[in-house]
Amino acid sequence: MQLGMVGLGRMGGNIVRRLMQAGHTAVVYDRSPEAAGSLVDEGATGASGLEDLVARLGAPRNVWVMLPAGEITETAIQQLADLLDRGDTIIDGGNTFWQDDVRRAEELRSRGLHYIDVGTSGGVWGLERGYCLMIGGEAAAVERLDPIFASLAPGRGDLPGTLGREGRDLRAEQGYIHAGPSGAGHFVKMIHNGIEYGLMQAYAEGFDILRNASSPALRPEHRFEFNVADVAEVWRRGSVITSWLLDLTAAALAEDEHLSIYSGYVEDSGEGRWTIQAAINEAVPAEVLSAALYARFRSRQEHTFAEKILSAMRKGFGGHIEARKPEGARS
Amino acid sequence: MQLGMVGLGRMGGNIVRRLMQAGHTAVVYDRSPEAAGSLVDEGATGASGLEDLVARLGAPRNVWVMLPAGEITETAIQQLADLLDRGDTIIDGGNTFWQDDVRRAEELRSRGLHYIDVGTSGGVWGLERGYCLMIGGEAAAVERLDPIFASLAPGRGDLPGTLGREGRDLRAEQGYIHAGPSGAGHFVKMIHNGIEYGLMQAYAEGFDILRNASSPALRPEHRFEFNVADVAEVWRRGSVITSWLLDLTAAALAEDEHLSIYSGYVEDSGEGRWTIQAAINEAVPAEVLSAALYARFRSRQEHTFAEKILSAMRKGFGGHIEARKPEGARS
Amino acid sequence: MQLGMVGLGRMGGNIVRRLMQAGHTAVVYDRSPEAAGSLVDEGATGASGLEDLVARLGAPRNVWVMLPAGEITETAIQQLADLLDRGDTIIDGGNTFWQDDVRRAEELRSRGLHYIDVGTSGGVWGLERGYCLMIGGEAAAVERLDPIFASLAPGRGDLPGTLGREGRDLRAEQGYIHAGPSGAGHFVKMIHNGIEYGLMQAYAEGFDILRNASSPALRPEHRFEFNVADVAEVWRRGSVITSWLLDLTAAALAEDEHLSIYSGYVEDSGEGRWTIQAAINEAVPAEVLSAALYARFRSRQEHTFAEKILSAMRKGFGGHIEARKPEGARS
Amino acid sequence: MQLGMVGLGRMGGNIVRRLMQAGHTAVVYDRSPEAAGSLVDEGATGASGLEDLVARLGAPRNVWVMLPAGEITETAIQQLADLLDRGDTIIDGGNTFWQDDVRRAEELRSRGLHYIDVGTSGGVWGLERGYCLMIGGEAAAVERLDPIFASLAPGRGDLPGTLGREGRDLRAEQGYIHAGPSGAGHFVKMIHNGIEYGLMQAYAEGFDILRNASSPALRPEHRFEFNVADVAEVWRRGSVITSWLLDLTAAALAEDEHLSIYSGYVEDSGEGRWTIQAAINEAVPAEVLSAALYARFRSRQEHTFAEKILSAMRKGFGGHIEARKPEGARS
Repeated sequence: MQLGMVGLGRMGGNIVRRLMQAGHTAVVYDRSPEAAGSLVDEGATGASGLEDLVARLGAPRNVWVMLPAGEITETAIQQLADLLDRGDTIIDGGNTFWQDDVRRAEELRSRGLHYIDVGTSGGVWGLERGYCLMIGGEAAAVERLDPIFASLAPGRGDLPGTLGREGRDLRAEQGYIHAGPSGAGHFVKMIHNGIEYGLMQAYAEGFDILRNASSPALRPEHRFEFNVADVAEVWRRGSVITSWLLDLTAAALAEDEHLSIYSGYVEDSGEGRWTIQAAINEAVPAEVLSAALYARFRSRQEHTFAEKILSAMRKGFGGHIEARKPEGARS
Repeated sequence: MQLGMVGLGRMGGNIVRRLMQAGHTAVVYDRSPEAAGSLVDEGATGASGLEDLVARLGAPRNVWVMLPAGEITETAIQQLADLLDRGDTIIDGGNTFWQDDVRRAEELRSRGLHYIDVGTSGGVWGLERGYCLMIGGEAAAVERLDPIFASLAPGRGDLPGTLGREGRDLRAEQGYIHAGPSGAGHFVKMIHNGIEYGLMQAYAEGFDILRNASSPALRPEHRFEFNVADVAEVWRRGSVITSWLLDLTAAALAEDEHLSIYSGYVEDSGEGRWTIQAAINEAVPAEVLSAALYARFRSRQEHTFAEKILSAMRKGFGGHIEARKPEGARS
Repeated sequence: MQLGMVGLGRMGGNIVRRLMQAGHTAVVYDRSPEAAGSLVDEGATGASGLEDLVARLGAPRNVWVMLPAGEITETAIQQLADLLDRGDTIIDGGNTFWQDDVRRAEELRSRGLHYIDVGTSGGVWGLERGYCLMIGGEAAAVERLDPIFASLAPGRGDLPGTLGREGRDLRAEQGYIHAGPSGAGHFVKMIHNGIEYGLMQAYAEGFDILRNASSPALRPEHRFEFNVADVAEVWRRGSVITSWLLDLTAAALAEDEHLSIYSGYVEDSGEGRWTIQAAINEAVPAEVLSAALYARFRSRQEHTFAEKILSAMRKGFGGHIEARKPEGARS
Repeated sequence: MQLGMVGLGRMGGNIVRRLMQAGHTAVVYDRSPEAAGSLVDEGATGASGLEDLVARLGAPRNVWVMLPAGEITETAIQQLADLLDRGDTIIDGGNTFWQDDVRRAEELRSRGLHYIDVGTSGGVWGLERGYCLMIGGEAAAVERLDPIFASLAPGRGDLPGTLGREGRDLRAEQGYIHAGPSGAGHFVKMIHNGIEYGLMQAYAEGFDILRNASSPALRPEHRFEFNVADVAEVWRRGSVITSWLLDLTAAALAEDEHLSIYSGYVEDSGEGRWTIQAAINEAVPAEVLSAALYARFRSRQEHTFAEKILSAMRKGFGGHIEARKPEGARS
């Protein structure tokens, strides 16, 4: 099948590669000409701009937009909409807010265009392991692109099957689903990332407690010096908490169990925030997912105004003067 | 009534002063001789040590121990127990872990001594406003010391009475209660402090959101530059969230709404921690009180090991390299 | 001064009463004719509809809208905008989402109308104690209505002044502020309510731990039977955690310390949710305010799907079969 | 090697089976004679009591205690200590509080006995997959029992190795570690379970938000009816959040995506609680792990006293009367 790809960063480029390895063809475009270079060497057709890209695709056209930020994506999709013809399809595979999909699909539908939102998980490993795809949009449009999705997905692999799935959608077992109407794909991806934040924070807190078990504030007979690299490794086998995130943690700790190259400043992306917004709209308690997000917010501050308020009150009622230096924490 | 006071810090000294103002007499001792000096000028009898203090008290003796830390208090009480006679009373007014009271009362009872645990709230304001007292121990011993407690307590003041309290213990309306057997006083004080942490954090977070409403990350038409000093002041009158802690916050913000003299490093004392321990033992969810405690823990670290674990995972699955500098937050 | 009031529920009616007591005049309207009846007896002019209300007001007109929900308020304001003349002012005193104020003020400005958003705290006590007012809008419009705001506010009362406020806005000390441009009033009120949730939950958790201190799961020597009504009362005097919310709690517990008439099902309103949304937009950690909101969400469910997921996993890895009955908790 | 096993429940019985499959021999005892029956059929030697068990073991003896609760374990170990000879070893493989290990090892050492604490993860799957073992105690004693531990552990399996582990302890890669001195094994197991709670709650909240995306409280164009069984399945392949816990969740949802057989009442065991206690002792913020524990506490209550306190305050300040019925939630 033929696909146009707009945006050839870490994700876009490798998606094209995986598709070409499966026998699909691609017309590719990126603002930065160098990005396209190596893909063209590998067999892709380069385009000089959106208009050129559209011109080089056979109808009905399929254009996958894989751009980093909301505004850039919006602009590219509006421009493509003006260039494409009725029956063509735009796929947004980036990290788009699902309510934007709902609006956008409605607008494009009125112009005879199809719109598919695809939440794409896989990171730097997707080229090799395949991408887990969470897809939203009209069934017919999604089904027409099935060859693309099937090639990108990881496939069944050697993972044991799940009992009781007889009669259920086989695509899920290949690593991709049609999650529902427009927005459903990015909604599921958003929750995926929300869960990811929670999982990461759970491991992070556990290792923090392990590491601080040697704190001089503890009674000497209750202190331990754990080898956290070995602990992470042992949990990979036979324990209840095995996971891919644990594999990655074990690898990082094996390299340097002090993690000295990391500052401890942690970014967050929109999905974690939107997950909490969804929880609140639905009145679903989401303590763990919120706490995981807030830990990242806090990691990016030297001190919060909230903390100064606390000290000010403490001085007010008790005359307490706080120390000014952070604790000599080992981390 | 006559009281011996061991420990003449901020709290102990003012307790003696308030008692003397009410006509009681005091024999006082502190490791540091200067601490006793001004109290002796004000009418107290100085003692050169615990033995001397005991010798200067008439039987049955009442000795109030007001020392800062658990171990020092324990030692002083054990020494006093050896010096006192059957029928004498030791009062621990410090911030003792309530389970230590339970053990200690049992030990002292077998030696014919009375033991009373008193949770004392009032901070630097107690001399003037009176101390809120939460008292644990045998009823007879507590009642015998009622003149002391009644003088220390704030009294009814001009606070409106609570409807429906007819027939209930009048002491509560004076600002002191006999909360139950040994340990009950410090247990109630512990919960008081646990709640205090939660209240403080609630205000702190609210003011933090107000202050960051001018964040450049927000859309320009959705930014505000609030005068947080005026906001704190206005909430003092007629709003649902009026409180003494808000009064203190308003005063601190009136002095400097940037709170520049505060580092943001916030201490915690045992009560906040023991409150969570009690909640867990009772299987009571205590999200807010725990979060308030953890905010203080976090405030004392530059970065946690947990945060580095997060960054390590992010690099592992997505190749993300975190920024190394804290955000240019205004706080 | 003359004010039109649309919406005569608990809040609107008492606002009119307080204004008339201060010598202002009012033209009032409510969908339900009975609501206006008693106010007319007390001296207000009744109106048969919005058109009639506008007709009975002298120019420049001031119309205060005090309606319960977002949509009804929006409709009323749009209808008023069509009826009013250039130079007239609409005041929204309800619980409006501040971003709606920003949009609305812009629309009305283009039609020559003034728009003022007023966050109003005071509940059922406002008539007697006065209303704490948080006001957003153009300075000139806000100043023109100062007589109204000054009469509604609690005034300085006998609350001690805050040191260091020399040269600051005197209105704050009367219980009202001009917080900033349109939306600022409701933003400050939103944060006020967010803090309120946090404060309430802090007290609630503390009393829950106190009450469950008699749990049979604890060792007998570590159990206490606290009189929570007396505890609440004693904390009102001289303690660090005195507040109006504590006064109310003491009153409720004095009436019935088991709180048997309350189901434990707790509503939340928009402000608590919008507060978290603001925190997330600003990347401010707001653990306590979020936890307080989630506790209310959870209180309205018999069981969450999340809890069933937990049990399903526990059965999967450990063969655990959960009990099916809630614990015999005393609450 | 020869091992005595005390306690033949789900865990103890299968540990014996796995050891016998690897060529070890076992002398077994359980209070309930039937429990031993099938193991004797499979080749184990039955014992009629602790004395008999000790008599049937060759010196130096190794006795593994695998009992469900703290008190029963303590009693069995004290009885064994009286029966065993210098140089013999007691292994506690249950879920013991690590501070008890520290105390116990000290006591037994003075009597010439060795003590090893083993945190054992594997649940009902351990017989087939092997047990992840976290071991504490003196190095010599732990090394002497290496054949037992090596046979119980899962071994390297087909899991990809971790880069950078050259020169590190090979046992971790087989699924067992010597974590440190006495108590270290159960400490690491405790943290393992603490993390487990956090991971489980993260998935649980995510699925709860997915499921409630069809809530009638949402705007119709923003509602989704997700097939949560398919979502769980798709995340198993290629996504960042793959894990064994997700595999189990997918299996449970494939069987019944409403999870109707689960009440939503969720137990917790000591490890989750002790994890928080350790975090607090070390002053490590552990928001996510605490929230996960509290969610279980809450799940076992119809309503908390805290919630009634909230309603009482709401009535006090706003006259709000709460609904009495839970929401018609689908869960």
